[in-house]
Amino acid sequence: MRDIAVFSGSAHQELAAEICAHLEVPLLPVRVQRFANDCLEVQLQANCRERDVFLIQPLVRPVQENLVELLLMLDAARGASAGRITAVMPHYSYARSDKKDAPRISIGGRLVADLMVTAGADRVLAMTLHSPQVHGFFSVPVDHLHALRELAAHFRQYDLSNTTVVSPDLGNAKEAAHFARLLGVSVAAGAKQRFADDKVQISSVIGEVAGRDIIVLDDEIAKGSTVLELLDRLRELGARSIRVACTHGLFSSGALKRIGDQPDVLEIVCTNTVPIAAEERGPKLKILSIAPALAEAMRRIHNGESVSALFDAP
Amino acid sequence: MRDIAVFSGSAHQELAAEICAHLEVPLLPVRVQRFANDCLEVQLQANCRERDVFLIQPLVRPVQENLVELLLMLDAARGASAGRITAVMPHYSYARSDKKDAPRISIGGRLVADLMVTAGADRVLAMTLHSPQVHGFFSVPVDHLHALRELAAHFRQYDLSNTTVVSPDLGNAKEAAHFARLLGVSVAAGAKQRFADDKVQISSVIGEVAGRDIIVLDDEIAKGSTVLELLDRLRELGARSIRVACTHGLFSSGALKRIGDQPDVLEIVCTNTVPIAAEERGPKLKILSIAPALAEAMRRIHNGESVSALFDAP
Amino acid sequence: MRDIAVFSGSAHQELAAEICAHLEVPLLPVRVQRFANDCLEVQLQANCRERDVFLIQPLVRPVQENLVELLLMLDAARGASAGRITAVMPHYSYARSDKKDAPRISIGGRLVADLMVTAGADRVLAMTLHSPQVHGFFSVPVDHLHALRELAAHFRQYDLSNTTVVSPDLGNAKEAAHFARLLGVSVAAGAKQRFADDKVQISSVIGEVAGRDIIVLDDEIAKGSTVLELLDRLRELGARSIRVACTHGLFSSGALKRIGDQPDVLEIVCTNTVPIAAEERGPKLKILSIAPALAEAMRRIHNGESVSALFDAP
Amino acid sequence: MRDIAVFSGSAHQELAAEICAHLEVPLLPVRVQRFANDCLEVQLQANCRERDVFLIQPLVRPVQENLVELLLMLDAARGASAGRITAVMPHYSYARSDKKDAPRISIGGRLVADLMVTAGADRVLAMTLHSPQVHGFFSVPVDHLHALRELAAHFRQYDLSNTTVVSPDLGNAKEAAHFARLLGVSVAAGAKQRFADDKVQISSVIGEVAGRDIIVLDDEIAKGSTVLELLDRLRELGARSIRVACTHGLFSSGALKRIGDQPDVLEIVCTNTVPIAAEERGPKLKILSIAPALAEAMRRIHNGESVSALFDAP
Amino acid sequence: MRDIAVFSGSAHQELAAEICAHLEVPLLPVRVQRFANDCLEVQLQANCRERDVFLIQPLVRPVQENLVELLLMLDAARGASAGRITAVMPHYSYARSDKKDAPRISIGGRLVADLMVTAGADRVLAMTLHSPQVHGFFSVPVDHLHALRELAAHFRQYDLSNTTVVSPDLGNAKEAAHFARLLGVSVAAGAKQRFADDKVQISSVIGEVAGRDIIVLDDEIAKGSTVLELLDRLRELGARSIRVACTHGLFSSGALKRIGDQPDVLEIVCTNTVPIAAEERGPKLKILSIAPALAEAMRRIHNGESVSALFDAP
Amino acid sequence: MRDIAVFSGSAHQELAAEICAHLEVPLLPVRVQRFANDCLEVQLQANCRERDVFLIQPLVRPVQENLVELLLMLDAARGASAGRITAVMPHYSYARSDKKDAPRISIGGRLVADLMVTAGADRVLAMTLHSPQVHGFFSVPVDHLHALRELAAHFRQYDLSNTTVVSPDLGNAKEAAHFARLLGVSVAAGAKQRFADDKVQISSVIGEVAGRDIIVLDDEIAKGSTVLELLDRLRELGARSIRVACTHGLFSSGALKRIGDQPDVLEIVCTNTVPIAAEERGPKLKILSIAPALAEAMRRIHNGESVSALFDAP
Repeated sequence: MRDIAVFSGSAHQELAAEICAHLEVPLLPVRVQRFANDCLEVQLQANCRERDVFLIQPLVRPVQENLVELLLMLDAARGASAGRITAVMPHYSYARSDKKDAPRISIGGRLVADLMVTAGADRVLAMTLHSPQVHGFFSVPVDHLHALRELAAHFRQYDLSNTTVVSPDLGNAKEAAHFARLLGVSVAAGAKQRFADDKVQISSVIGEVAGRDIIVLDDEIAKGSTVLELLDRLRELGARSIRVACTHGLFSSGALKRIGDQPDVLEIVCTNTVPIAAEERGPKLKILSIAPALAEAMRRIHNGESVSALFDAP
Repeated sequence: MRDIAVFSGSAHQELAAEICAHLEVPLLPVRVQRFANDCLEVQLQANCRERDVFLIQPLVRPVQENLVELLLMLDAARGASAGRITAVMPHYSYARSDKKDAPRISIGGRLVADLMVTAGADRVLAMTLHSPQVHGFFSVPVDHLHALRELAAHFRQYDLSNTTVVSPDLGNAKEAAHFARLLGVSVAAGAKQRFADDKVQISSVIGEVAGRDIIVLDDEIAKGSTVLELLDRLRELGARSIRVACTHGLFSSGALKRIGDQPDVLEIVCTNTVPIAAEERGPKLKILSIAPALAEAMRRIHNGESVSALFDAP
Repeated sequence: MRDIAVFSGSAHQELAAEICAHLEVPLLPVRVQRFANDCLEVQLQANCRERDVFLIQPLVRPVQENLVELLLMLDAARGASAGRITAVMPHYSYARSDKKDAPRISIGGRLVADLMVTAGADRVLAMTLHSPQVHGFFSVPVDHLHALRELAAHFRQYDLSNTTVVSPDLGNAKEAAHFARLLGVSVAAGAKQRFADDKVQISSVIGEVAGRDIIVLDDEIAKGSTVLELLDRLRELGARSIRVACTHGLFSSGALKRIGDQPDVLEIVCTNTVPIAAEERGPKLKILSIAPALAEAMRRIHNGESVSALFDAP
Repeated sequence: MRDIAVFSGSAHQELAAEICAHLEVPLLPVRVQRFANDCLEVQLQANCRERDVFLIQPLVRPVQENLVELLLMLDAARGASAGRITAVMPHYSYARSDKKDAPRISIGGRLVADLMVTAGADRVLAMTLHSPQVHGFFSVPVDHLHALRELAAHFRQYDLSNTTVVSPDLGNAKEAAHFARLLGVSVAAGAKQRFADDKVQISSVIGEVAGRDIIVLDDEIAKGSTVLELLDRLRELGARSIRVACTHGLFSSGALKRIGDQPDVLEIVCTNTVPIAAEERGPKLKILSIAPALAEAMRRIHNGESVSALFDAP
Repeated sequence: MRDIAVFSGSAHQELAAEICAHLEVPLLPVRVQRFANDCLEVQLQANCRERDVFLIQPLVRPVQENLVELLLMLDAARGASAGRITAVMPHYSYARSDKKDAPRISIGGRLVADLMVTAGADRVLAMTLHSPQVHGFFSVPVDHLHALRELAAHFRQYDLSNTTVVSPDLGNAKEAAHFARLLGVSVAAGAKQRFADDKVQISSVIGEVAGRDIIVLDDEIAKGSTVLELLDRLRELGARSIRVACTHGLFSSGALKRIGDQPDVLEIVCTNTVPIAAEERGPKLKILSIAPALAEAMRRIHNGESVSALFDAP
Repeated sequence: MRDIAVFSGSAHQELAAEICAHLEVPLLPVRVQRFANDCLEVQLQANCRERDVFLIQPLVRPVQENLVELLLMLDAARGASAGRITAVMPHYSYARSDKKDAPRISIGGRLVADLMVTAGADRVLAMTLHSPQVHGFFSVPVDHLHALRELAAHFRQYDLSNTTVVSPDLGNAKEAAHFARLLGVSVAAGAKQRFADDKVQISSVIGEVAGRDIIVLDDEIAKGSTVLELLDRLRELGARSIRVACTHGLFSSGALKRIGDQPDVLEIVCTNTVPIAAEERGPKLKILSIAPALAEAMRRIHNGESVSALFDAP
């Protein structure tokens, strides 16, 4: 395997540039052309032969555009005789389509994984997949990073003596418990209940939250409805202060503003796996960079060193 | 597609015979020969050409023996020009190996799914997979049945006015809530906590259990340690009576006797997805048959009717 | 193979409805849901088991959205045990990415064909592919229709005694010659030349056009620049009247208005492979329906009759 | 990847030897044995393990013999654990079977590409494929060279001030225009017309040829009928002198003699992608060697350097 | 599956016609065109859609021509949407390349099997493969017929009271023993020995042959050297009369004449799996037709009946 | 390819340790865990990234356990980004299931080969496969060693002037002849005959054995019935002394004791491809180590040197 070659699609060029700065390699140019018939064409504008090619593209909105662009980049790299092609996907939105909970629906998480292998992906570098089973949807090796260490480092600046980590629902409770252990604090979780009219609500919070400093932790926040509902419960139960944290800050439908407008929310913390427009960033938002972690993982992948050491608990 | 042909491996001939009785078709003979070098050879002893072949084999202990036998049956059916081959796996034990929670481990659930497709499986009929994402591990269509209706029908004979369904851990809580809705009762769940010495314990039970008639529900019970630990918690919290229910009754390491010996356990209910030796069946054990459901699913698969109607909630 | 089941994606529901009317079968419902994270989920809302499933979706703008939607529909149909899945693509825009005319570019036409097979397509019904070699990009059977008969039937209403068919460039000249033979008229073609500054222009028209009634024929019209340039040449060369015809009326960037605004253009004729918004349709536009041809092809595919008879020249 | 290993099939050993001389590596021995039952067996007679193996075999007559021999060589190299296998095909005759212009015909260009990948080809080095879309028929990387630079270098020895390049038909006109630009001269093309009796004839020549020195350029010349017919048209139109050039000199059915016998043909120029028996080479034939170009491309492939630089226009 | 469609390549049209006569179906026309560049193109000249297509083509000399023709026929049938494609290969010459007895040689038997599946074969009907393991080289179902019943029926016309079946070498001895059992006679075999100079000779005959009426049985006879050498041994050992029998009569290099010229050879019996030119057939040659057996196997394959019943020993 | 990494499954750790000692590399640790539901999970406990991974696991009893363990190891190595994965199988028991000698039986030798490739094997190192055609069952490169040199070296310590090598049946006679040539002695073979009641017996011995010192040679000895029957024949024919040799000493059903109890058997010689419990090893058993040969083959595979030189006859 010859030297490393890093390209980025349109999805998140800022993150790609930051990763390359950490790796001390240039971000190589890509030409993405849209034809009059709305088709895309990709040209990787640097030699790929026998090189260790990394293509950085989180599957963020517009998801379908970014997905097809990534598939075309994979195809171009394969046709250009890349030695090995790694898709770097800091966010894999289709991971949420991971089960068949109704008849005749698509399982997008598995399908997109297969499409990427068809297009030429030799391996994948992903971050905080929605469920750990999604790893198995890929027939190629996956390195799966977590951002809990970055989030924990941030919160250690505060006095955590009275703190509790709260997961909005039971599904993410295991992750929250792991995070609480990293911080040496207690954990709680919201319990959702489905009502006769098929509406889902957080009916209760399991664990002690009265008078506590709360860190709400979720893997991703999109519309933010669940978090807002949890905040209502926490207030009713007498929480003292609230901070909100997640890995993937999707923040659609004005979620950032709506959560930030809550007076008792002191801070919203996320990482930069998903780009956030400057104009949407309010004063309470704190964005942590996972570029160093991704760069280190890419360096280790290139050198054949263990990546698992990166995300093992201390 | 011509007529149906049903064969069974060694794993659970009793269930296969019962299914065939419901379908009113013969259970066709299979010759499994073990050579002096411990290899197996399978011969399907009835014509398979262009027929709709079903191979019944839950992956129960001895799992490796039963798995290889199933793979050889698939290969034999394919080589014999079967029109379509459906593997009927009432229990898929490798579904538990569904994530990579340590570096360099195998993901057996995905691997075994791939092996089955390699050996010739065109589709799979499974029951209560450990996690719904396992569905996506198969690249061929999967019909995924649940036994909750059978379990609910059984419990409706009792006065349920004071009943709560309890899931031993948060991971199965969603299923327990669905079951509770079927019965029109409330739900609770045990919460596990990991201690400094890496030991996992059920530290608390979320939801009200004091003075209630409890139905403990899990997808499968193997060693039974989790259930026994939950029983301790339930007693401490003042539960009034306890019944234990699961779909897959693996009951290894004397689990059946240890749970049955608890004086306050009134009943242990499971289905016959896994064979249970007659000598192990105690007086408290009640085994429900899922043969009618599997037979009906096979009939619908053969006729091209919707299987999802079978397991939709009422 | 059991009975036919026709579904349509979002791309062109009007055409799908018209096809179903001709087939006298219902257009079955599809639910396409967009999640907060911008991912799509598709549910086919009618039983697919063992049925002969047709999914109608031209790859028109927004192309990436429609492509991913089609892939998810294919996946859903496969997972739902469809007996056979045919993707009906009246327009395949990625067919234009059919060669590697620069280093390290993607060949989208081949890649998208592979993605469709990965997602579950058993066969494809396409119309007027940009180059005939694109047929070979699919590893599954393709039925390839042409709209020349429909276009010819339209023009036969006119006096054609003084008519010449003109192809805007040499690449489509063979098709134009075939069309001219159908009408019994003469043919000509524009010749493009590349200048020092890499600009391409139609430098001359090969064949006699002075004093003739011209039918300009192209496979598709997108931005319309080539057609407009050809019109300049035709005027300089003294053409008597001009009509413009194509199979795929993409008409991006106001092409329809710009061409329609030319006073000497009497008519713009296209088919309905691509949807055209009502507000963009000017008085000179004539849209011919290829729904009868597609319906007839689908009927023949379902019945196992020859489709080639449909498009053979008389 | 370890060092390079070059083998040649029976098709064109002279070219292979010349390539190896340029690369300064030995041409390694191959044993091709024909059994009494007419089957072939191939043995590569030098170690291939982990080496960068190149197999030189143009698909020239006898095509079927040479194809099967190449497939067996690929299989032998793969079974011998070659690190990478590149099929070097200076001529790919099946490229002409690239579309389905009649029902139920084979598309040989795609099929043979698939067979080569099945047999073990990791990549392909080809020259002047009949249509650029054939590139996409291969699912492995293809380096596609052109011989226009070699041909142009040859013609620059002449006074080109009065020269026009003429393509026999419109299909090859783009290539001819590119060649004309390389030489700084003008271009013209023959236009074929199909008559009622299905006979095809060159009916006219587009562009000025009267009094000009003509270079007829085609990608390949087989039976030579088209060229001979073009010569008739050129004479009628008053061309001053004629030279004939092509990349692939197949020259079947005495084509070389028939063209050479034309008194006004001054020269026939081709490359050595196809072997030409010494006894068939007349005094007017000039064969240019593309061995240096192929050797340079192989050197770059082995070293992971860009091959596209080789064929970019100046 | 709809009705049957039988086509034949060039290899053995006489056999194909005879099979069709037995099946009472027409032999459908195939157009095989050879272009000036020596490539082949195949067109199946009857509708294949959803039909049960059989392509008859023994791999006999010219083997490479016939192989590529068969692959193109498979490709054409697949592209024409055949419901199922069965390659009927009464002789599979590449079966002899079944092991790697030298480094870096091709294993043609496995490779050609893979090529056929790549080209579209869904199943194979073969006859008397050189070794039974070759069956496993195909990843699709194979029906494997034997001609021993046809050969036995012929020899039962003679007085067999003093008869011994002799296999020329130990490799075919098992088959000879099976044949002897069918006839109720004894068996013997030649034993080859390799000498210092790498020459192989039949050094002895195992079993009693003195004064016996000998039937020499081999699976195929090509150059005939082994048979001629065996005849020398049999004469030395005092055999009374000699008849020679085989399934596949390849008879290359004048083998038929050389064996027929032996005065003590009373008869040479083979089947018509391989075509034998009329002018080569001497007075001692008796050709048995396996067309009825192949037709019956094809009928059973089409109807989904068991083929194995056809070749089981009585 | 980076450095070598050798792991061993449970089947034969002693052999693996010996191989590593010869290679002077550590045997890296593997954790194999059996869950309560009888499923296995494998963790390779050392970094595999880009390393040249060898997994040592003969398929010996318990075969099904060892096979699934090997498949899980392959899967784990692939998921851990191994550069190349070689399965080292000193004994491949499923090689005996290599033909379809009855309808509708499995061909285990081919199926298990496909399963291994599905699980991630890039290549295989095997020893003395039951039939040479099994090589072709693998679609990946196979290095196939023989132990005849090791066996020959052992027997050269004796006076061989009066020695004959005897194969128990004709199927292994070729191997025995090769061994006899290595020792410079003569060869003989038992001939089996099938009787009316389907019982098979060694009816005669071909070649001279009276008064000779016999070395019985087989590829493997399992139940030992054939060898014991051959010993009866040899005694009847007046053999002077008897030694028994094989590559794979399976010795099931007390075979070792039964053969060793024969007073005229001086010695039983096998290699250590199959583990033999210490308590079963009698005084006459001599186990030769093939660890040096396997280590040398692995070293050559890693370095890209020819392995075939290892097993070529002198």
